[in-house]
Amino acid sequence: MPAVFSHLRWHPLRGEWVVYAAHRQTRTFLPPSEFCPLCPTRPGAFATEIPFADFEIAVFENRFPAFLARPSTASTLCVPTAPAEGACEVVVYTAEHEGNIATLPPSRRELLLRVWADRCQELSARDGIRFVMPFENRGEQVGVTLHHPHSQIYAYPFVPPVLLQEVTAFHQGDVLVDLLGRAGDAYTVVEDERVVAMVPPFARYPYEVWIMPKARRSGPWEFDDGEVASFARALADVVRGYDALFLKPFPYVMVLHAAPKGEDDRFHFHAEFYPPLRTADKLKYLAGTELGAGTFIVDALPEESARILRQVVRRLS
Amino acid sequence: MPAVFSHLRWHPLRGEWVVYAAHRQTRTFLPPSEFCPLCPTRPGAFATEIPFADFEIAVFENRFPAFLARPSTASTLCVPTAPAEGACEVVVYTAEHEGNIATLPPSRRELLLRVWADRCQELSARDGIRFVMPFENRGEQVGVTLHHPHSQIYAYPFVPPVLLQEVTAFHQGDVLVDLLGRAGDAYTVVEDERVVAMVPPFARYPYEVWIMPKARRSGPWEFDDGEVASFARALADVVRGYDALFLKPFPYVMVLHAAPKGEDDRFHFHAEFYPPLRTADKLKYLAGTELGAGTFIVDALPEESARILRQVVRRLS
Repeated sequence: MPAVFSHLRWHPLRGEWVVYAAHRQTRTFLPPSEFCPLCPTRPGAFATEIPFADFEIAVFENRFPAFLARPSTASTLCVPTAPAEGACEVVVYTAEHEGNIATLPPSRRELLLRVWADRCQELSARDGIRFVMPFENRGEQVGVTLHHPHSQIYAYPFVPPVLLQEVTAFHQGDVLVDLLGRAGDAYTVVEDERVVAMVPPFARYPYEVWIMPKARRSGPWEFDDGEVASFARALADVVRGYDALFLKPFPYVMVLHAAPKGEDDRFHFHAEFYPPLRTADKLKYLAGTELGAGTFIVDALPEESARILRQVVRRLS
Repeated sequence: MPAVFSHLRWHPLRGEWVVYAAHRQTRTFLPPSEFCPLCPTRPGAFATEIPFADFEIAVFENRFPAFLARPSTASTLCVPTAPAEGACEVVVYTAEHEGNIATLPPSRRELLLRVWADRCQELSARDGIRFVMPFENRGEQVGVTLHHPHSQIYAYPFVPPVLLQEVTAFHQGDVLVDLLGRAGDAYTVVEDERVVAMVPPFARYPYEVWIMPKARRSGPWEFDDGEVASFARALADVVRGYDALFLKPFPYVMVLHAAPKGEDDRFHFHAEFYPPLRTADKLKYLAGTELGAGTFIVDALPEESARILRQVVRRLS
């Protein structure tokens, strides 16, 4: 580990913490599949992150973490600093190197949802943690460095900006229950009696999809068995639909937004998928207006994207 | 123009407007240079956007605008909507198809800064406009569809989220004057008596650079001739330094943050460059934590990036 440890610096104009983790520059970058660090260690071969011949789901600390359990104190600078206290974990879905969340057996996908829920609760209980977010980056277009099916979990020592905005919204009411009551079927991709997947009418990406329980749950730890099954099935349907849309693996960033600590009474848990594709071969780039002003320009209508995805998902089921 | 016009929809969880502009799907995408729509129209050839044989700087309305001067009323939806009132303009720096902001003659670069200032003032004066932002997207890595040296100007009918945050910060004091007083030389890339270019100590991109007047100006329209010359020179130094860093054209998003309407008394004008490169051949991708939580993880220290850029710029001058 180099001398420069992780720490936070305050951005005074945007009013947010920025995390510095210089040791991450050397992280593993698209190794050939025989050197995949997320595969089980094979007898006589190099030691991967997983010292077992097989497993169902593996969780371990990220070797290149942005947040640390016991960080050093941050140096004093010309802007406020803070230790980068927290945790970064990796969740490997399967011992198989190929596949994705949709190709897992249903029972494994339900187990995955339970693992995310358990880790959220365990990490949230630690001193200094304010918010825990499981997320999956999929595809080289979003910078994925390891293709083995996996997600990550970040445990933050503060409530990040997007979650602060959501908390503010949920303090005025259950925005998602309101939305479900008003939206009708036009935005639905797939649903059952407990869970709905929709392109939200205010989507910021052409094929953005949200999955949410119809009744308010603050996190997946509040799900009953039926909700676990429904949510896991919706995850599979959405990812299978994405992959069928352009007949190739569909890149996305998927985040789980569960309640930050102390917000269990108002927050409505949901997953958000942000896919970077506008068409089979064109990316939606974030540029001047998105990065510099925070305002997204979208050239696809959510109701049209929902109709297309709904048809694809129906055809597959 | 298709039936679906531009309009705004309210994102209730993030508390921001999203702009829908479905007609932009057909916009011109990386045409061969002989069909560049930003070159002057040649006798007997197809009509470009510019019906002149030569020009200094050309400004015209974007043919694929996100915002319109007289938008239709937005339909009623299950979320609040509003007309996408505003303007989108293109600013072409030169009749030459090749080059960039650093290869312009100094007088042309100063003229460019005056053109941006004039357009900001003219557009801001229109009813319904709350904020005007000139910006330049450079490089295919940030989605540029036309290589001819140019920038864009968006005139928004609301104050976008990032600018709202900056306004909030400036209401507590002049954050940039404070920063300049405290930062010392460690973050400076280049400076003179009137203007400084720095890697801010809270940079969110590995080679992020800000250029600002040392004295508070609410926008470039308040610059005296000396400030125009200094700011234009700093723009050239930064872009020339960027291009020398990896010995190839350096992609970036550059935005000008001038005062939103009514904020002239507190806002401190500055330019922000967001380059997507971490190294000569590695991109910084925005993924789970950046897009889903709004928290940036950076693996380069600002003081180190500043030292590198400072050396490159000094060597060139």
